Amino acid sequence: MPVTLNCDMGEAFGLYKMGDDEALMPLINVANVACGFHASDFNHMRTTVQLARRHGVRVGAHPSLPDLQGFGRREMAMTREEMANCVIYQIGALKGFLDADGMTLSHIKPHGTLYGMAGRLEHIAHAICDAADVFEVPIMGMAGTLHEEIYTARGHRFIAEFYADLDYNDEGGLIITREHDAKDAAEAGARCLRAITDGKVQSVGGVDLPTKAETICVHSDTPNAVEIASAVRAAIADHIEQKEES
Amino acid sequence: MPVTLNCDMGEAFGLYKMGDDEALMPLINVANVACGFHASDFNHMRTTVQLARRHGVRVGAHPSLPDLQGFGRREMAMTREEMANCVIYQIGALKGFLDADGMTLSHIKPHGTLYGMAGRLEHIAHAICDAADVFEVPIMGMAGTLHEEIYTARGHRFIAEFYADLDYNDEGGLIITREHDAKDAAEAGARCLRAITDGKVQSVGGVDLPTKAETICVHSDTPNAVEIASAVRAAIADHIEQKEES
Amino acid sequence: MPVTLNCDMGEAFGLYKMGDDEALMPLINVANVACGFHASDFNHMRTTVQLARRHGVRVGAHPSLPDLQGFGRREMAMTREEMANCVIYQIGALKGFLDADGMTLSHIKPHGTLYGMAGRLEHIAHAICDAADVFEVPIMGMAGTLHEEIYTARGHRFIAEFYADLDYNDEGGLIITREHDAKDAAEAGARCLRAITDGKVQSVGGVDLPTKAETICVHSDTPNAVEIASAVRAAIADHIEQKEES
Amino acid sequence: MPVTLNCDMGEAFGLYKMGDDEALMPLINVANVACGFHASDFNHMRTTVQLARRHGVRVGAHPSLPDLQGFGRREMAMTREEMANCVIYQIGALKGFLDADGMTLSHIKPHGTLYGMAGRLEHIAHAICDAADVFEVPIMGMAGTLHEEIYTARGHRFIAEFYADLDYNDEGGLIITREHDAKDAAEAGARCLRAITDGKVQSVGGVDLPTKAETICVHSDTPNAVEIASAVRAAIADHIEQKEES
Repeated sequence: MPVTLNCDMGEAFGLYKMGDDEALMPLINVANVACGFHASDFNHMRTTVQLARRHGVRVGAHPSLPDLQGFGRREMAMTREEMANCVIYQIGALKGFLDADGMTLSHIKPHGTLYGMAGRLEHIAHAICDAADVFEVPIMGMAGTLHEEIYTARGHRFIAEFYADLDYNDEGGLIITREHDAKDAAEAGARCLRAITDGKVQSVGGVDLPTKAETICVHSDTPNAVEIASAVRAAIADHIEQKEES
Repeated sequence: MPVTLNCDMGEAFGLYKMGDDEALMPLINVANVACGFHASDFNHMRTTVQLARRHGVRVGAHPSLPDLQGFGRREMAMTREEMANCVIYQIGALKGFLDADGMTLSHIKPHGTLYGMAGRLEHIAHAICDAADVFEVPIMGMAGTLHEEIYTARGHRFIAEFYADLDYNDEGGLIITREHDAKDAAEAGARCLRAITDGKVQSVGGVDLPTKAETICVHSDTPNAVEIASAVRAAIADHIEQKEES
Repeated sequence: MPVTLNCDMGEAFGLYKMGDDEALMPLINVANVACGFHASDFNHMRTTVQLARRHGVRVGAHPSLPDLQGFGRREMAMTREEMANCVIYQIGALKGFLDADGMTLSHIKPHGTLYGMAGRLEHIAHAICDAADVFEVPIMGMAGTLHEEIYTARGHRFIAEFYADLDYNDEGGLIITREHDAKDAAEAGARCLRAITDGKVQSVGGVDLPTKAETICVHSDTPNAVEIASAVRAAIADHIEQKEES
Repeated sequence: MPVTLNCDMGEAFGLYKMGDDEALMPLINVANVACGFHASDFNHMRTTVQLARRHGVRVGAHPSLPDLQGFGRREMAMTREEMANCVIYQIGALKGFLDADGMTLSHIKPHGTLYGMAGRLEHIAHAICDAADVFEVPIMGMAGTLHEEIYTARGHRFIAEFYADLDYNDEGGLIITREHDAKDAAEAGARCLRAITDGKVQSVGGVDLPTKAETICVHSDTPNAVEIASAVRAAIADHIEQKEES
């Protein structure tokens, strides 16, 4: 199976910009599109879906905690049932725009803190599955966490992703800050290649950890996201799914 | 064609109650379910859809201007394109919950000021049709307004509705206030019967106006909504679609 | 010092009602007024302040986590600095309405989960103090928690409150649910009298715990709040501050 | 009286940036600070006030319609009473941050569509005055509109402002778009100088119109705002109030 490059995008809101989606879309295979809860609104969702279609990019839902001010990066206590509802609402809304443009939903990938919570809290991982039961699509996540364990146990297809622009701590966890920093693009490319071919990543403490990379993620709000995506694409050219743009 | 009784409902929000949906659902055929923009949230949408299913009630989307504080009853200037997006987002979200419970979307009925705007502003009526193009369902509205004219011209099935609990002005327009008042239930029933059988309604100024009633609307936030719905149901018993509850 | 009766109120939002403020206001000495983040909006804040003034009731700010859908009852991770800003914003907004009606700010009492967080998380208790530094008013809270410890250490006047309508667990903590239940009014009155005179409260597990009651709280969203407030007022008649209405 | 340079600023929101406030603040005398309704939030309000203080810039409130997605640039129907409440809430919140940093409120300047509405709708101009009654500060606006007429009639000090970065139509009205375009900076400077010395501005149709310029406005969200502010400052050097930074 070829590896894909995915990107969290469509994160503008009203007059506010976030990320250079125009430049990123040609470089990726799969877009995780914000659904209005941490970023985006009904107008940006429409234009993001249309941009993806023009570039032959598949669209997945990128649902979040309901926290626009915190960009979905502040943990909130929610029950399994309300989290499932929260996620179904967002995915349904995105599907409206996919229907409008004749596209289908590709997958689900929780955003930010919701992603982190689903990786370590059972009731949240189950809430994500509850939503996936409705839309019958795969779920992206991190191998070796509750993402993989619970999604797989519930019979969902799990897609293991590796982060080009985030660091890993010595326990294999992602180091997520409220704002992302620029990263050395060449180094990011090399790390991705190693993750794909060797299944390994070096933590910030210098520990070699096992990892899995069916898809590589670049965040559109990382300052040099376009440069990173280009470098990663070049570095993993022999492994990545080829794009056919319309 | 038998007449149906429809009700704007699912208008609670968080801990806030609105309307006695439990008591109303057994009395109606069709629920217009709030989508989170003037009322409701992802939790109440879920439970409202489930309540409708238990009572064999069809569910349509009741999208609104984005104005929770104003309950969708403050006019806002929006372009056709952003209004279409606004409505697609809401309907898509509701469809997520219908999918979750194995139901299909019945129709679209704009809420409050959006309903009024669509009746007199061409670009807004077109925005509603733009959304209806995506979901391919009928649109409820008021006969003799742009609702009927534009929806029909655009090839959508138009369902003419008569209001059991609102007054009509001498020009045939609805008199809408931010909060609804209680109405005499028996009188409401008689008015509905006359609208169905004679196609006429008397305005607040005493003028007899032509009207059309393929469906009768009761608002769940009218103080005595349950009493009105019961009285209407009794008054039009010979004309109303029979319910089969599950 | 006579004891006061305080009430969390002004918790309507838009067309949504919450609590019978009209009936409660004559019964209380001090109102903790919602500031738009868990409940209320600029219109209800205005009318609540005016209602308080008519009844000679002092007004304190009742700031919350920014979570209208969750009624401020879902824990959210926030830093000390952003929590202080969050609280200053809300208190400032309320002060605008107090200025408009010639009243002064009486005190600060955090709402719901923010109240609970301030009682057990140092950085949140400090954030409350940071806001109190700006407005120079006392802070209400629970004796024996970080409320008392940190507010006092920071030089703020701490007002110990006892809850008429909530149960205490065996460790002396409050049992808070997202929706409040009705309580036996006579029993609530007796508990309050005992808390004032003996400084004791019995937990749900039957343990006698020390407590402190400089002020008694009734929640306006407890179903039988008016009945409870009346019963408490009668039970503690010899101890409560007398009201002079305008 | 020397002329001042004012700027609408503090318009970031959460992780979203808007305008280069750091570069603009040294160039201006007066900041109109967003209050969270069209832009900003409690964190950005705090840092904007602190930035202003460091640069010896006076702070006024820049309240808006409650419309974050539309950046306060979509007209909404509101009554005088609720608009006054809406504005009092925002100004009060800003005052909280001014209190926190030992500053005083300088003035009120409505934002975007609220500014336009106050210039042509009597009930909205009165709502602004109702708020100004509470805070007892001057109001900025456009000469020759209801701003000047009603604010003055109500006894408020009116400060006439001239726009460096907006065009005027042939009737003397501002041409406001949802997003601002870059402007020729030298030309903007020349226009401002002419407005100050001759009291005239040329409309887009080539008509010479009378105008009044006690203060000059540059929008922080105009793409080349820093360049324009610098050019204006240079062009009107003989007339502008001198700054003393702390």
